[in-house]
Amino acid sequence: MFGIQYWDITMKKSNGELMLDAATKLFAENGLAGVSLSEVAKGAGVDDAEVTKLFGNEEKLYETVLESQFGNYAARMGAVFDKGGSPIDKIELLARAMFDVYKQAPYFFPLFYRELLNPSPFFESIVIKNIRHVAYLSDNNNTKGIQKGQLKRGINPAYATMFLAGMFHYYFLASRLEGSLLPQPANDEEYLSQAIKVFLTGLNKGV
Amino acid sequence: MFGIQYWDITMKKSNGELMLDAATKLFAENGLAGVSLSEVAKGAGVDDAEVTKLFGNEEKLYETVLESQFGNYAARMGAVFDKGGSPIDKIELLARAMFDVYKQAPYFFPLFYRELLNPSPFFESIVIKNIRHVAYLSDNNNTKGIQKGQLKRGINPAYATMFLAGMFHYYFLASRLEGSLLPQPANDEEYLSQAIKVFLTGLNKGV
Repeated sequence: MFGIQYWDITMKKSNGELMLDAATKLFAENGLAGVSLSEVAKGAGVDDAEVTKLFGNEEKLYETVLESQFGNYAARMGAVFDKGGSPIDKIELLARAMFDVYKQAPYFFPLFYRELLNPSPFFESIVIKNIRHVAYLSDNNNTKGIQKGQLKRGINPAYATMFLAGMFHYYFLASRLEGSLLPQPANDEEYLSQAIKVFLTGLNKGV
Repeated sequence: MFGIQYWDITMKKSNGELMLDAATKLFAENGLAGVSLSEVAKGAGVDDAEVTKLFGNEEKLYETVLESQFGNYAARMGAVFDKGGSPIDKIELLARAMFDVYKQAPYFFPLFYRELLNPSPFFESIVIKNIRHVAYLSDNNNTKGIQKGQLKRGINPAYATMFLAGMFHYYFLASRLEGSLLPQPANDEEYLSQAIKVFLTGLNKGV
């Protein structure tokens, strides 16, 4: 969301954007403790001094990366709930939005999983804050689905959010590697549509 | 299951076991690159020289930890398929076995997630080998369930394995931290039984 308009017009990214892109990739691959400003400068093709001037130190740069990535995620997922549609429509849109982020912002999920394994000083203020916001919207949508008689009673709406998210998180965690855990290369669209089907059937009121 | 019998009799672990326990915890928390033999010695309450003598170097020690943890996991999960019972019974037993590992070997899952984020030299030989073995048994069980008319046709049996595993992996990844993503502290048994119910209803043939 950083300078998108400028980029669309000129097709050329600013040095600030290049540094942020390089930093996002490096932090996703190596974690906060595994990246130096020098490596970011090298990745962005700029001088070390330029990174220091704009971002200060590794921790400040990491904070900027997390803010951008988690802000973007929360905005993309939150947009699902701004529009009309039944709770069931929104469950499908939410699942599709997760896949869109996976494709369009491929470093977001590794950053998130690293934070879950080794929380940084920004875990509460950025990670939990944004993830909780999305979870809250989804939990409320599930509750509405139960109240409207579209989803079955007796299932904890917050657990249901985790069931749906988990089906995709494990896919993202496992399939970003060559030599995936699946016997054949997975088809994203097929996986997504079967997961939504199993989830919605599993929560079907009539059953 | 290193020296279990000895331990059961004397209630005292050998130094080798203490070193392995300390190493397992440290590698799960900090990864292969984040642990020294000295820290392991300190954690086990032995001399540095004793760790070096028994395990050589960090990489050899890490390999021993992975072999023990992934071997234990594959054995525990594989045991589900050695007994009688319908494919549906086995899906429930498999889910319960995952939870047992989560409780009894709490460092196994963080070690696995770290390997998925940053594969070590043992990724193919230990991680993939054991995880594929379990996935293969589960995929075959799902296929049998479809053939017997207990699970619905049209669902990819390997995707179904990932749906089930994913519901639990995300729970393990998210809930091992204080300040979980759930609004209230989760109840393991409730989460487990609702996940199994949603999964089995989602795959129900009749629907």
